[in-house]
Amino acid sequence: MSSLADLPIRDDLRGLTPYGAPELKVAVQLNVNENTHPIPEDVARSIIEALARELLSVNRYPDREFLALRDSLARYLGGGLTRDNVWAANGSNEILQQILQAFGGPGRSVLGFPPTYSMHPIIAAGTGTEWIAGVRDTEYEISPATAVDWIERTSPDLVFFCSPNNPTGTALSLETIAAAYNATPGIVVVDEAYAEFGHSEQPTALSLLEGRERLIVTRTMSKAFAFAGARLGYLAADPAISDALRLVRLPYHLSSLTQAAAVAALAHAPEMLAMVDDIKKQRDRIEVTLRELGYHPYPSASNFVLFGGVPDAHRLFEQLLERDIIIRDLGIEGHLRVSAGTEAETTAFLRAMSELTEAR
Amino acid sequence: MSSLADLPIRDDLRGLTPYGAPELKVAVQLNVNENTHPIPEDVARSIIEALARELLSVNRYPDREFLALRDSLARYLGGGLTRDNVWAANGSNEILQQILQAFGGPGRSVLGFPPTYSMHPIIAAGTGTEWIAGVRDTEYEISPATAVDWIERTSPDLVFFCSPNNPTGTALSLETIAAAYNATPGIVVVDEAYAEFGHSEQPTALSLLEGRERLIVTRTMSKAFAFAGARLGYLAADPAISDALRLVRLPYHLSSLTQAAAVAALAHAPEMLAMVDDIKKQRDRIEVTLRELGYHPYPSASNFVLFGGVPDAHRLFEQLLERDIIIRDLGIEGHLRVSAGTEAETTAFLRAMSELTEAR
Repeated sequence: MSSLADLPIRDDLRGLTPYGAPELKVAVQLNVNENTHPIPEDVARSIIEALARELLSVNRYPDREFLALRDSLARYLGGGLTRDNVWAANGSNEILQQILQAFGGPGRSVLGFPPTYSMHPIIAAGTGTEWIAGVRDTEYEISPATAVDWIERTSPDLVFFCSPNNPTGTALSLETIAAAYNATPGIVVVDEAYAEFGHSEQPTALSLLEGRERLIVTRTMSKAFAFAGARLGYLAADPAISDALRLVRLPYHLSSLTQAAAVAALAHAPEMLAMVDDIKKQRDRIEVTLRELGYHPYPSASNFVLFGGVPDAHRLFEQLLERDIIIRDLGIEGHLRVSAGTEAETTAFLRAMSELTEAR
Repeated sequence: MSSLADLPIRDDLRGLTPYGAPELKVAVQLNVNENTHPIPEDVARSIIEALARELLSVNRYPDREFLALRDSLARYLGGGLTRDNVWAANGSNEILQQILQAFGGPGRSVLGFPPTYSMHPIIAAGTGTEWIAGVRDTEYEISPATAVDWIERTSPDLVFFCSPNNPTGTALSLETIAAAYNATPGIVVVDEAYAEFGHSEQPTALSLLEGRERLIVTRTMSKAFAFAGARLGYLAADPAISDALRLVRLPYHLSSLTQAAAVAALAHAPEMLAMVDDIKKQRDRIEVTLRELGYHPYPSASNFVLFGGVPDAHRLFEQLLERDIIIRDLGIEGHLRVSAGTEAETTAFLRAMSELTEAR
C-alpha cells in the first residue's frame, strides 16, 4: 500500500485535503442546509413507479438530451422558458464545473465574493480557472458599484454570484446583477440554489434572462425539493449556453433513473414545495430568537442562518455536538451557520442555544 | 436567441461539435455496444425495493464515500480487493475525467493508441491534457516493444490502454501492460469496460495490480451488467489512487439512487452475468458469418465486432438503416462495427448482411 505522496499527482494538488463537511451520525443534523423533511409518501410512490418503468430499459443508454426532464424543469420555472433554455447535471456542482470547462479554464479567471459557497473556488481550481476573491460591503452585501468596481479592476472571464448567498443568507439585488452584466463581456452566473426560500417580494435573476445571452441562473432540487440524495442541479439561460455545455459534458451524464425520479418529483412540485413555508417560518424563528439571545444573525433569504457574536465558535459547535446537534463551523471567526430544520429540530437547537448562552 | 459564436467560449472549443452517436428510433439497435438483453425481472424487483428504501431519506445528501457500493464492487471483483481499492463515478467517462484531473491537466500529456474509445481524446481535451496518438502494430495489436518505444519517445504522464479495445475488440497482453508500467514513472490506465466478454484463458489487468501503485483498471456496469442507463463506472487500484481522486471529485457525485441500484444489481451478479455467455456466442457467430461472407472481422474479446473489407462503409450503413438495423460507422475507411445483440437481433443483422452482400 502506497501513500498519495508516492503518486505523480499534479503539483497544484499536493498537500491539499478533500472538501467535505463531517459525515457524523447525529440526531439533529443542521449542518449542510438539507431540507430535513422527507418527501411526501404519495410523491415517493409516483417516483417508484417511474423508476420501475425505467428499469425495463436500463440496459440501454439514457436519453443523452434528457428532453422530458428539460421540459419538466422549464414548466416548473415558468416565465415562458422552454427546454432549450434549460440544462441539467448531477448536482449544481457539475453544472458549475461544465460552465467553467466551457468558459473558464487555464488562462481564464472567475471573480467571486467570499464568504460564498465553498465549492466555487474548489471547482475553479479543478478546472484550472484562476479564482479572484472580491470583497463584499458591510453586512456581506454587494452594491452595484462594488461589483462593477471589482470587474473593472480585475477583468474576469466569469463572475459568480450566489443569491441568496451561502453561508451568509444574503440576497443580492437585481440591480447589482444587471450592473455586473453590463460591466463585463464575460459570463455572469447567479447560483440560486436557495431561491425558493426567498422573500416573496424579491424577484429572482430569472427575470433578467431575456436579452442577456451571457447570464446563467443555476438552481438545484436538493434544497426546496428535498432531493439532495438524487443529485439534480440545473440552469436557465439562452439556448446557446446549452450548446456550449454540450461540448464539455460527458455523454449520458444523467442516468435514466435520475431523469425519471426528477421528472416524477417535478410533476408534484406544489406538494414538494409545501414544506418551504414551514422552513421559512423556522428560519425566521431562528433569526428572532438568536437576536434575543444577544447574537448577531444576518437577514436570511435562505433555509439557514449565519450568526455572529459567538465568543468561541469552535467551543459552541462542540457543546452543541455533545447535545447531539450538529451545525456548521465555516472557519469565520465568531460565526456559525445553522440550517432551519423541522419545528422539533429547530426547537431542540434553540433550546440548547438558550441554555448554553445562559450558562456562559 | 443567440448563437454559440456570440458567447465567450474557450478558443480551443470554437468550431467543435459535441460527441454523440445518433439517437435514432430503430428496431435493431446494434450501434453503441449496449447489452440488448433487459435485466431479469426478479433483479429489477430487488432494485426497486432498494430504491424505495432509499427514497425515504432522499432529502439527505448521499454517502459521499459510497461505502456499501465500494464493498459490493470489491466483492464482485474478488482477488482480495477491498473497498479501499475501489472507486466509482457516473460512468467510466467520469472515472477517466477524474484520473486526468488528478494526474493530467495543463502541461501534462496522455499517450493512447487509436483507434480506441473515442472519448479518451475528448476527455483529455476537456481536462487540458495533451493527447499523444501512438500507432498500433498490424491487426490493431500493441506489442510490449511498441508500447515501450512510444513511451520512451514521448514521455507521457499517463498511458491509456483499452482492453479489449473499443472499437477493434482486440485484447491486450499482460506483457504489454507490465512492460509499459516499467517504462514510465507515470500512471497506466487499462480501460476494461468489456472485460467480462473476454476469453476465459485471458487474465485481466486486475492480476497485475499487486505491487503496482500507479496502475489503474477501470470497469463499467454498462455492458456485462446491462446497466448502461444507470451510469456506474468504477476502478480498482492502490488505495492511494482514491485519495488522489478525492481531491478532484465533486462531493456527493454519486446519487443515493445510483448507489442503491448498483448495490442491488451486484447482489445478483451471477444472474446479471448469465446473458454474457449468450452474447459471446452471438459475437462468435458474427465473426464466423462475416468471414464466410468475405469480410475481414477482427478477433474480438468484447461484445462487438469490427469488420473491414467493406467497399463502401457509409452506403452499407445506410442500407442496414433502411432495414431498421443500426450499426456504427466510426469513420475508419472500409470498416464498420456491430454490437452482438440477442439471438434474434443478431440473426436479423446477419441475414441483412447476407442479402446485401449477394446483391452487390
